[in-house]
Amino acid sequence: MQHLLTMDQFSCKDFFKLTTKADKYLKGDYKKILQGVDIATLFCEPSTRSRISYTLAASRLGANVIDLKQDYSAVQKGETITDTINTLHAMGFGGVILRHSEPGLPGRVAESVSNNLHIINAGDGCHQHPTQALLDAYTIYKQNFDFKSISIAIVGDVLRSRVARSQVEIFQTLGVKDIRLVVPKVVSLKQAKPGTQLFNNLLEGVSGVNVIIALRGQLERMNRVLAERYLAESTNFIINEKVMAYAASNVILMHPGPMNSGDEIDRSLINDKRCLVLQQVEYGVAVRMALLEMLFHVKH
Amino acid sequence: MQHLLTMDQFSCKDFFKLTTKADKYLKGDYKKILQGVDIATLFCEPSTRSRISYTLAASRLGANVIDLKQDYSAVQKGETITDTINTLHAMGFGGVILRHSEPGLPGRVAESVSNNLHIINAGDGCHQHPTQALLDAYTIYKQNFDFKSISIAIVGDVLRSRVARSQVEIFQTLGVKDIRLVVPKVVSLKQAKPGTQLFNNLLEGVSGVNVIIALRGQLERMNRVLAERYLAESTNFIINEKVMAYAASNVILMHPGPMNSGDEIDRSLINDKRCLVLQQVEYGVAVRMALLEMLFHVKH
Amino acid sequence: MQHLLTMDQFSCKDFFKLTTKADKYLKGDYKKILQGVDIATLFCEPSTRSRISYTLAASRLGANVIDLKQDYSAVQKGETITDTINTLHAMGFGGVILRHSEPGLPGRVAESVSNNLHIINAGDGCHQHPTQALLDAYTIYKQNFDFKSISIAIVGDVLRSRVARSQVEIFQTLGVKDIRLVVPKVVSLKQAKPGTQLFNNLLEGVSGVNVIIALRGQLERMNRVLAERYLAESTNFIINEKVMAYAASNVILMHPGPMNSGDEIDRSLINDKRCLVLQQVEYGVAVRMALLEMLFHVKH
Repeated sequence: MQHLLTMDQFSCKDFFKLTTKADKYLKGDYKKILQGVDIATLFCEPSTRSRISYTLAASRLGANVIDLKQDYSAVQKGETITDTINTLHAMGFGGVILRHSEPGLPGRVAESVSNNLHIINAGDGCHQHPTQALLDAYTIYKQNFDFKSISIAIVGDVLRSRVARSQVEIFQTLGVKDIRLVVPKVVSLKQAKPGTQLFNNLLEGVSGVNVIIALRGQLERMNRVLAERYLAESTNFIINEKVMAYAASNVILMHPGPMNSGDEIDRSLINDKRCLVLQQVEYGVAVRMALLEMLFHVKH
Repeated sequence: MQHLLTMDQFSCKDFFKLTTKADKYLKGDYKKILQGVDIATLFCEPSTRSRISYTLAASRLGANVIDLKQDYSAVQKGETITDTINTLHAMGFGGVILRHSEPGLPGRVAESVSNNLHIINAGDGCHQHPTQALLDAYTIYKQNFDFKSISIAIVGDVLRSRVARSQVEIFQTLGVKDIRLVVPKVVSLKQAKPGTQLFNNLLEGVSGVNVIIALRGQLERMNRVLAERYLAESTNFIINEKVMAYAASNVILMHPGPMNSGDEIDRSLINDKRCLVLQQVEYGVAVRMALLEMLFHVKH
Repeated sequence: MQHLLTMDQFSCKDFFKLTTKADKYLKGDYKKILQGVDIATLFCEPSTRSRISYTLAASRLGANVIDLKQDYSAVQKGETITDTINTLHAMGFGGVILRHSEPGLPGRVAESVSNNLHIINAGDGCHQHPTQALLDAYTIYKQNFDFKSISIAIVGDVLRSRVARSQVEIFQTLGVKDIRLVVPKVVSLKQAKPGTQLFNNLLEGVSGVNVIIALRGQLERMNRVLAERYLAESTNFIINEKVMAYAASNVILMHPGPMNSGDEIDRSLINDKRCLVLQQVEYGVAVRMALLEMLFHVKH
């Protein structure tokens, strides 16, 4: 594994290799195995926590992390990003953590780079956000759930969510059989993806599930009319105490962040023990450290 | 001491503990006692030198300093900053250096964080700017003045100045008996703070003082009419050679910066031996290093 | 040598001292000789690769590099930049890498700083860009050309190019006798610089040369009418296969970047073995490391 581009490149075995490493990093057990490596963060779309999480992960392993946002903000067009990557490679960067609005761009960029540069997809449009899915799966794993017997409901604007797309892939890889996409009608999918079930009613969708993942409405990817209709309908998709009661008694509640406070998860649940939003954030850094160790083939 | 929030939390003993440490750092005697610690700078208001000074202080002690400004610039509202801080804490940050326009916000944030996260107030609206006051007091201390017998004049827009508010607190803690607030009438205080004297005439205010501290007009916090009236009157409050002659023979001249060149201190005095503006900047880094050592309870 | 301000301060001996060091860095042979040194990058004009290249060079040598752009973006006027530099010096910065729109500013700033602060000119308006010229000369040197017997054509908007100005100086220092400035008529120079030849026809200009250096049109420094006329005429100055055929058989093609893709060099030549654009980028980091070693008088 040289790059991280899409979630379907991860096998079940890869995932459990990752969890072993992440467990170790979570305990604070790490050495500067990326000392001497320069890593660039190139976020051509706004980011809140992802860039910081990657920066912490790489710098804790000893890498020198340089943020290019302000320098390359002009480079937002797909046709020249390959030139940019080639320039960074010539400078000696060992890795580029890339967020871009164009679906599939990291994959296309990766095709043309030589084998000592690692491309990490930190989100490409509506397409994929692999490390978010990995850390979400890791959060579930840390609850000692058996992936083969749990039910997971992904609630919200699934169609536009790169997170949901990556999550479904890794959950299926890990053997989850009951995956439910719980989607407001106004942004509903034409049909459920193979191996998943589609719901347009929240209480039905979460009935008996062990995991609820709430998603943010991707309002910035909707036109105004759709955004208004979405906002109106999505009030019926807020996860609150009543909704939680329909789920299994051991249910956990997750959200990839950033949350529109109160819009997806009722404020009263934020500090609830079942709500693992902050654990996801914490695990995210450990998972990214583990991933970097795997991609750079460095020994701990 | 876990956080630095306001100046009144500092005792006289704390201050002299700080000076001992700062003296040491000023000589370049330091070790990487914050190695492995991640510190975030979160400046929700523009800053010139403060962020750089903190960044130097923390990084010279070995900390990994990450600037969040560009990522969290949307987070300017008080109601969600606590979420942001909780996220940063979950990621494993050990300290957050916070500047925000809302008075008292750092204190409210600090109430909800656990005991392994340190919040440092780098300026909250018109409220407090504790490290600026500490470095100013340290600058006076380095002149071998006896705090108990000196007179200090703070000149300018005292009402809107978080620096002045923090200075008065630390000077009173250190036993300064003669503190004068020398303020243009147009922005005058209704009454002097307890233990201070109010002047609306510059020459009277600086008469016989050992320390003159000139402040910048906070034009960005005034409406246009007030700003114009302030600019007109403040020409009578510029510190020049004639003004210096009214002070004590051993007077020193200070300014927290950034200066509006020539507006508060006449250009002819900038390179004068009595003007300690660059010493303040130099001492600022050492004082912040000393403060970090105290807050993080790490041994040199 | 305390500062790097203009190219004419470099002797032939200095250059070959630099190449010896750069050769070593190019092989990855370096130690943290700038450990404990704080270096500021202060780019008051937009930059793509230069800031990153300097940042990599300094941080690979162990320096702590802090970017001031966002903090000092207000400081764009010549009259206060000296105050900024003095502030940075007081904070303990050991070097400032400065890009500014005002020709000659780095030199004027350097006059007033004390001898433990190093100013590096990373481009001052249309005046100079010394490290770009050094890395270009180094690229030619790495081809084992004999500077005394080669012909070099600099093609494009030479008049506005700080790169061209610095290149001519270093090439003349190194003994290059045949330097040709190949310039579209609409932006033509009144006369060639001493020791160079002026051409307004591309094929004549590159006839038999060993080195072609294509320059970007500095459209941002032209008014609109001139920019349109330049764009129209510059289509006759694109380096393509036919143009290359007029040059010597061992010709190399260079460009300081960033390229306006296809406007200066035909896309078909970008991946051609004779096109050394990525080598220039690679060498740039090594050359800047070598330069820092020379300026800071630190031993490897």
